Amino acid sequence: MQKAMIQKLRDKLGARYVLDKPEELAVYECDACTLIKKAPELVVLPRSAEEVAFVIQQCNEHKVPYTARGSGTGLSGGALAMQGGVIISMNRMDRILDIDPRSRTATVEVGVVNAWLNEALKPYGLFYAPDPSSQVACTLGGNIAENAGGIHCIKYGVTTDHILALQVVLPDGNIVWLGSKSRRSHGPNLVGLMVGSEGTLGIVTQAVVRLTQKPEKIRVYLAAFDTTRDAGAAVSSIIKSGLMPSALEFMDAFTVKAVNQAFHVGFPEQAEAVLLIELDGYGSQIVHDELKLKEILEEHNVSQVRIGETEAERAALWKSRKATVAAYGRFLPAFYLHDCVIPRSQLVPILEKINEVAERYDITIGNVFHAGDGNLHPNILFDPDDAKMVRNALEGGEEILHACLAVGGTLSGEHGIGIEKAEYMSLQFSEASLDKMKLVKQAFDPTGLSNPEKIFPMRNGCGETHRATTPALLAGDGLWI
Amino acid sequence: MQKAMIQKLRDKLGARYVLDKPEELAVYECDACTLIKKAPELVVLPRSAEEVAFVIQQCNEHKVPYTARGSGTGLSGGALAMQGGVIISMNRMDRILDIDPRSRTATVEVGVVNAWLNEALKPYGLFYAPDPSSQVACTLGGNIAENAGGIHCIKYGVTTDHILALQVVLPDGNIVWLGSKSRRSHGPNLVGLMVGSEGTLGIVTQAVVRLTQKPEKIRVYLAAFDTTRDAGAAVSSIIKSGLMPSALEFMDAFTVKAVNQAFHVGFPEQAEAVLLIELDGYGSQIVHDELKLKEILEEHNVSQVRIGETEAERAALWKSRKATVAAYGRFLPAFYLHDCVIPRSQLVPILEKINEVAERYDITIGNVFHAGDGNLHPNILFDPDDAKMVRNALEGGEEILHACLAVGGTLSGEHGIGIEKAEYMSLQFSEASLDKMKLVKQAFDPTGLSNPEKIFPMRNGCGETHRATTPALLAGDGLWI
Repeated sequence: MQKAMIQKLRDKLGARYVLDKPEELAVYECDACTLIKKAPELVVLPRSAEEVAFVIQQCNEHKVPYTARGSGTGLSGGALAMQGGVIISMNRMDRILDIDPRSRTATVEVGVVNAWLNEALKPYGLFYAPDPSSQVACTLGGNIAENAGGIHCIKYGVTTDHILALQVVLPDGNIVWLGSKSRRSHGPNLVGLMVGSEGTLGIVTQAVVRLTQKPEKIRVYLAAFDTTRDAGAAVSSIIKSGLMPSALEFMDAFTVKAVNQAFHVGFPEQAEAVLLIELDGYGSQIVHDELKLKEILEEHNVSQVRIGETEAERAALWKSRKATVAAYGRFLPAFYLHDCVIPRSQLVPILEKINEVAERYDITIGNVFHAGDGNLHPNILFDPDDAKMVRNALEGGEEILHACLAVGGTLSGEHGIGIEKAEYMSLQFSEASLDKMKLVKQAFDPTGLSNPEKIFPMRNGCGETHRATTPALLAGDGLWI
Repeated sequence: MQKAMIQKLRDKLGARYVLDKPEELAVYECDACTLIKKAPELVVLPRSAEEVAFVIQQCNEHKVPYTARGSGTGLSGGALAMQGGVIISMNRMDRILDIDPRSRTATVEVGVVNAWLNEALKPYGLFYAPDPSSQVACTLGGNIAENAGGIHCIKYGVTTDHILALQVVLPDGNIVWLGSKSRRSHGPNLVGLMVGSEGTLGIVTQAVVRLTQKPEKIRVYLAAFDTTRDAGAAVSSIIKSGLMPSALEFMDAFTVKAVNQAFHVGFPEQAEAVLLIELDGYGSQIVHDELKLKEILEEHNVSQVRIGETEAERAALWKSRKATVAAYGRFLPAFYLHDCVIPRSQLVPILEKINEVAERYDITIGNVFHAGDGNLHPNILFDPDDAKMVRNALEGGEEILHACLAVGGTLSGEHGIGIEKAEYMSLQFSEASLDKMKLVKQAFDPTGLSNPEKIFPMRNGCGETHRATTPALLAGDGLWI
């Protein structure tokens, strides 16, 4: 990279905010999908949209690709500098600029950590709903880039449902506001287009987010079942009943055993599935909902129910859900995680398909996922040194993916496409549809310097797919599921 | 238009579904914004996406512009053939293809009338939430094109919140599916981009829509206040309280008097404002919410409260809201309706601004609007034959629009941009932002034949604005607000 450009950036941002030493760059060579690695040539830490615009103008002038990055907790390699160039770290743009409790909006810089915003909202009795498991570390900018989800999406929706307006630095260096603070908008929805586009259409610098009233009461129910079919049917019945749980999570037999052995949480050993169900709302409403829920669970032969009312009791129940990845590690050193979403009515058949695939390929698959949204997380465990197991994990995983897409599913529910799933896009979308996506990309980023190689498949056909996904396959460090 | 093209269309669609007689075309010369008129040269009524694709291919071959149309209930001229050419009427594509109560989705052709779908959903205890006032006549395709709202948006959201996937015939003649039946998706959100784009990016032929569980109980409260400030403050307090009413409508002093005189509904004569508030949910929850609501209304000096519990009682209360336009007609023959949205916290100052403008310009403005969403509907009454009054109405209206935009508002909440507001776009969006919209338009529609002159401003500067909006100004027939 040209010394002149680096010097210009140092003059504008301050020398300490422009990093080029190998040991400094190494920190930015991957995200939470740790085995896809590519170090940038330069890292800059701007403090304002104007500084971001200056960086992009420099990149345009010198034909240098650039990639925005938050805390690097992503699972699909969205923040990797695949073609080298500049990583624009947004972490210094970390101010909460405005909280308006009457309009129920907050205006934030995108470097604000998700949990910080919710901390700041406590006095108002409000919260920002999307809560990915990486909430304590991930930035709102990263959440916007990947359209992040979390366990509460079933009731509160994903990130895109909570973004009213965005300040964006476009690839041409212009700073624009898209959308507005108002609850309704019109015309081509560029805000919706930007959310989930992983920095391929521009870099978001500020966001006006929608805030939600905190519920009066929260309760968590742990429900164990002897058969997967009963648990899956219970999920469908809960949805169909009109209950709107704030979380509806599923753990399969293998996961239950793994968690039992690792943390002695004392799930019934014969349980083939455990559901974690959270209800929130008004006091009187919770009582009503609880009766309905218990009815449904009993209809479907629940074998054990535990209830968490206090914050401590609820945390104890959630611990078993959050500790699953650690528990898996006791069986095999690595796992490959798919993130596909299916229509909820397909839950039971797909779970049976996954079990059938696991048997046929002789692989171990742990299922722990957002059942309420139909957002599966089949964790295929494997030993990276066992070539046959790796191949089976890969092929079995792809068969599961095909099965999900065949029933109207999607590639990813909350982890984004990034580099890890880009080659799978052609499995879900027609050429004509992908062409339109590429035309939109070109409309915003004619030079292709804005986070290259992400989302949009560069190659075609499954022959190439393997090569593209093999690195992800080796990732044993999926902290955030 | 070439005879050869018309013949080809007749051969493909059937002669009776290709209209070119002046008396047939006259039906399609305007929408509910009746004084912007432009007759098409041809009207076709296709039965399938394949037939729509054939029509578009013919239009491309002969460089003929085309515009999709539903029932023509729009208020911004979105379905007008501004450059002549072909109107593609979607009314024959009126099949409900699938209702999946477990996934809570329905797959429909876009010619299905909003109310028909809800009729078909009754046996399942489900409903399709977006309910514009034109619900009994408007099609789902028109709702999607304009991102339609309605009185229940405050709780249930606008159209875009309920669309999971779209089948679209692109301007290049390709038929693609965007999005999926799953509740979560990823990548550039082309579904979100398509909703509200008024047929400028392609023609939607099928939609997978999200269905919502019917509430157990519904109650409507009519609350009268002696001052606008009290009523406006009550709205803010209701929102801030955490209550989530399913409707929160505002009628000002003039509207109250007009409705009283026209329909003798017996509102207190001294009332400066009336709120219509609907609560829905579980029985026990409603009781809880009702107590909270009454507390808030009393805090803000409510002078009268009426409660509607049975369907008949509720209908009686809603009648006063729905009859306002007819009531206005007794004062002046025409009105010009703005549709701007403001952050809810700005409600009281903006209402005071509107009153101040009305006095200064010596014009009559009736305010009846979706207060819960901050979606204003200032109805500026005037006599088309009184040139001074017309000019004052126009200038006063524009001042109100500027005031709304100045506090972070938007041009339109639910009526779309169409042709009527296209020239105002530059008041809200920067050149850079509008350029991106135009690039997106070009990406989808390089030839510009797909519903030309809509949304995207062709001219610049307010000098032109007047000419563009004068026709709308004369519209006295805004049936659907």
